[in-house]
Amino acid sequence: MGIKIGIITSSDRAAANVYEDISGKEIIRTLTEYLTTPWEPVYRVVPDEQDQLENTLMDLCDNAGCCLVVTTGGTGPALRDVTPEATEAVCQKMMPGFGELMRQVSLQYVPTAILSRQTAGIRNQSLIVNLPGKPAAIRQCLDAVFPAVPYCIDLIGGPYLEANQEVIDVFRPKK
Amino acid sequence: MGIKIGIITSSDRAAANVYEDISGKEIIRTLTEYLTTPWEPVYRVVPDEQDQLENTLMDLCDNAGCCLVVTTGGTGPALRDVTPEATEAVCQKMMPGFGELMRQVSLQYVPTAILSRQTAGIRNQSLIVNLPGKPAAIRQCLDAVFPAVPYCIDLIGGPYLEANQEVIDVFRPKK
Amino acid sequence: MGIKIGIITSSDRAAANVYEDISGKEIIRTLTEYLTTPWEPVYRVVPDEQDQLENTLMDLCDNAGCCLVVTTGGTGPALRDVTPEATEAVCQKMMPGFGELMRQVSLQYVPTAILSRQTAGIRNQSLIVNLPGKPAAIRQCLDAVFPAVPYCIDLIGGPYLEANQEVIDVFRPKK
Repeated sequence: MGIKIGIITSSDRAAANVYEDISGKEIIRTLTEYLTTPWEPVYRVVPDEQDQLENTLMDLCDNAGCCLVVTTGGTGPALRDVTPEATEAVCQKMMPGFGELMRQVSLQYVPTAILSRQTAGIRNQSLIVNLPGKPAAIRQCLDAVFPAVPYCIDLIGGPYLEANQEVIDVFRPKK
Repeated sequence: MGIKIGIITSSDRAAANVYEDISGKEIIRTLTEYLTTPWEPVYRVVPDEQDQLENTLMDLCDNAGCCLVVTTGGTGPALRDVTPEATEAVCQKMMPGFGELMRQVSLQYVPTAILSRQTAGIRNQSLIVNLPGKPAAIRQCLDAVFPAVPYCIDLIGGPYLEANQEVIDVFRPKK
Repeated sequence: MGIKIGIITSSDRAAANVYEDISGKEIIRTLTEYLTTPWEPVYRVVPDEQDQLENTLMDLCDNAGCCLVVTTGGTGPALRDVTPEATEAVCQKMMPGFGELMRQVSLQYVPTAILSRQTAGIRNQSLIVNLPGKPAAIRQCLDAVFPAVPYCIDLIGGPYLEANQEVIDVFRPKK
């Protein structure tokens, strides 16, 4: 079985086809640039409903066997922003360092970066990472946290991901 | 109905009139400098009791209709520091970026900034933000996070707050 | 009764004597350099089992009377990394500023610093701080957070710790 990476767009409007999902496609494009190891995206668009998000996260981790699931959207303070809650509900371990670093990086661009509640966590052998909804912020956040992602996946027993070091400076500590 | 902002001082000594509440007044003074939109403070001083704090937070959000409630005091590690716990108990969503940024800013002044457990969260259509107890630190923290506050209140369906941009650089992303 | 500080190494391999515990010894060495107040280490090595860790934390706080308990190991994303969970389970209050600052400092050295879930918290009159497992990172993290530790212990009613200010710049705010 090949390496699979889940991409979930949480957006009422994208799910209703009111507009095109640019954010999810931006994630796929960025990961394609990063990774030299062959991989296959498992791509879903869901409305901002916590139970649907949780079911999709579990499906991509448990059934599709994704070693990494990246979400976009639903991390703000509004009533229907429920991605962090869905992520926490399906994870055994939370990884606060991801959200801290992504907010810190986004703060270099906009002071409203503190409104993002994005987080990350571990479900069994899958790493789940929330990204912001805006395409420009997606690349900034992925560039910041992705250097630690392959080693994290090593530590939870996932596949060995290799990256194009000219595009993204992936790091693994020496034993 | 006009725009209301809640200010809560959590302090056993201020509540017992052992000393004057300088911190709450500093918050009112700062917000008056920031905002050009007319607003009315709803000001309370309570002892460091979690249930009284929770009741006051709920009263200011639900009955007084405050779009923003700012607390001061009770964020340290001591037994009677319970403001973050009271805040978390009455909020549906937590906003970790506020506490992270305020601690980072305060760290530029004192290494004991890491002892502050201040946080922020959303209760229905109200944003609750914990500030430190010390008057000097209050201004530093408000200057850091307030640029994102009006947009946060927009996103949760509250009133449109306008600020004096020469005093505080409020930011709203372009759609 | 003299001042006691707990040091707990969480490591399956160190507990099984597969290798020597360098990390716990590095903590004792560093604290000995820092502190001029006489103190006594209470040192334990336990496997990465959450219930054993919790019992050891409670024993060092409640029975041994340690005002400070420092752990090393078990803060990563792997299945058997359970130190933050054990810490949270025995604490009444969490201190998020410690983990935030330690990750920020470690990020200056390695991008995988965001994988550390280390935290700190208060159990009655004891401060518990998680440090990373790697000896080099231990010193970096202690240097960053220790300036705030003696004042924190003051605030929770513990003993007055004095440090060699030429080694570590301990800070207590003026009243």
